[in-house]
Amino acid sequence: MSEQQSAHSTSVILPTPPEASRDTLLARVRVVLVETSHPGNIGAVARALKTMGLSSLALVRPRHFPDAQAQAMASGAIDILKTARIYATLDEALHGTVFATASTARSRDLSHSVLTPRAAAARMLHEARHGPVALVMGPEKYGLTGRDVERCSIISAIPANPEYSSLNLAAAVQLFAYELRLAAEPNAVPRGDDYPPAAHEDLELFYAHFEQTIIDIGFLDPAAPKRLMQRMRRLFARARLEREELNILRGILAAAQAAARPKT
Amino acid sequence: MSEQQSAHSTSVILPTPPEASRDTLLARVRVVLVETSHPGNIGAVARALKTMGLSSLALVRPRHFPDAQAQAMASGAIDILKTARIYATLDEALHGTVFATASTARSRDLSHSVLTPRAAAARMLHEARHGPVALVMGPEKYGLTGRDVERCSIISAIPANPEYSSLNLAAAVQLFAYELRLAAEPNAVPRGDDYPPAAHEDLELFYAHFEQTIIDIGFLDPAAPKRLMQRMRRLFARARLEREELNILRGILAAAQAAARPKT
Repeated sequence: MSEQQSAHSTSVILPTPPEASRDTLLARVRVVLVETSHPGNIGAVARALKTMGLSSLALVRPRHFPDAQAQAMASGAIDILKTARIYATLDEALHGTVFATASTARSRDLSHSVLTPRAAAARMLHEARHGPVALVMGPEKYGLTGRDVERCSIISAIPANPEYSSLNLAAAVQLFAYELRLAAEPNAVPRGDDYPPAAHEDLELFYAHFEQTIIDIGFLDPAAPKRLMQRMRRLFARARLEREELNILRGILAAAQAAARPKT
Repeated sequence: MSEQQSAHSTSVILPTPPEASRDTLLARVRVVLVETSHPGNIGAVARALKTMGLSSLALVRPRHFPDAQAQAMASGAIDILKTARIYATLDEALHGTVFATASTARSRDLSHSVLTPRAAAARMLHEARHGPVALVMGPEKYGLTGRDVERCSIISAIPANPEYSSLNLAAAVQLFAYELRLAAEPNAVPRGDDYPPAAHEDLELFYAHFEQTIIDIGFLDPAAPKRLMQRMRRLFARARLEREELNILRGILAAAQAAARPKT
């Protein structure tokens, strides 16, 4: 037995949760809607969840459910409505979760610590390595009661216009779901340009060609060039020219030179 | 006159945009909805904007507007609907803007660079120091056309579930508005030395001039333009042309046209 192994076996071991994939973590997020009044909002929430790869929806005492309006607003996320579970109390809906975030716009005298959605999402995903976590949303008009908030681990408030902070329920869920998706994918790389860039030496040939051409067409006086080529270099460097773009531009320069040549 | 002043008067002047407050920057963001089908979505967008402190809404050929459903969905953001402006074309809606972000879910062969909403918001707020900027959202079903996207400076795509990426229009606007608000937080706006960008309408004149010039010099066959101008738009959009650079390029184009003209 190595020294390190023996050290481990005699000291406190912090269990490291196995690596969980993004999809696994997102599947562990249960969104709990408490006493939702408008069934259309439940459908819109289902859609918001699905767009971000979440799937677990819990409804505590929904006023109308199932409902045709919920179906209509769910669009392509009917499956999430179908698997939604209905509970009589928040405690039942939170059963089995290891962490819960209460979403609330109101500030409270005796509150838990209040995190931004971004910080709350990071925390939730961290806890989700251990088991199911919950995001708890209150009724449209009044939000969560103090009693409901007490049942959660943290509070999260969406930064908003202090003069009008009333986000639609599904819009608020969309923001949290988005932050959760981003938090689950910390190294997400946006799609970008991966066309081959022009090589340095070809760029230099291009700049020389550019300069000669604007001399040939009478735009640049080689005796007083000022800082013109410097500006053009700055422009094209910012664009990070691609190989093919450079070839097109060289073609245009050659055509301009040919057109400017005295006809014999 | 000091040496520095005299140097400035003959060379490039680096104007430092004045410090702008968060509210000022957010007020410069114009959200442009192109051919929205459902008036309820227009109302929900107005609400989403107001919750994040945005206020400028532009509608390009809305199917129904004004409309009772828009009013109902706007909730406490009726004022934003009332001041919304209606346009016949995207170019008109973008008039006066110095930067525009196209929101699209689809990937394209020949695209501008694609940023996350977070990166796009930071970029937009940066440009908003110079003047109005736009966020352009397409019709619910089909999204923006390639022609519309070409008119913008960058593309932004919301990271989403690849199996179901269909965010509701207002939900998508809510995400962008949220990222814009966060990006506008004091100290969150990156400061840099940069020059005033070209305005949308001047860029369009430049593209038209560019196209005419490469026809005049015999490079482009107007009968078979292929996708050349699309490529050039993509290149210059990436560079985000400055006002003065645009003037230089227009001068070069005019010189090339003059040189190509048959000598009389």
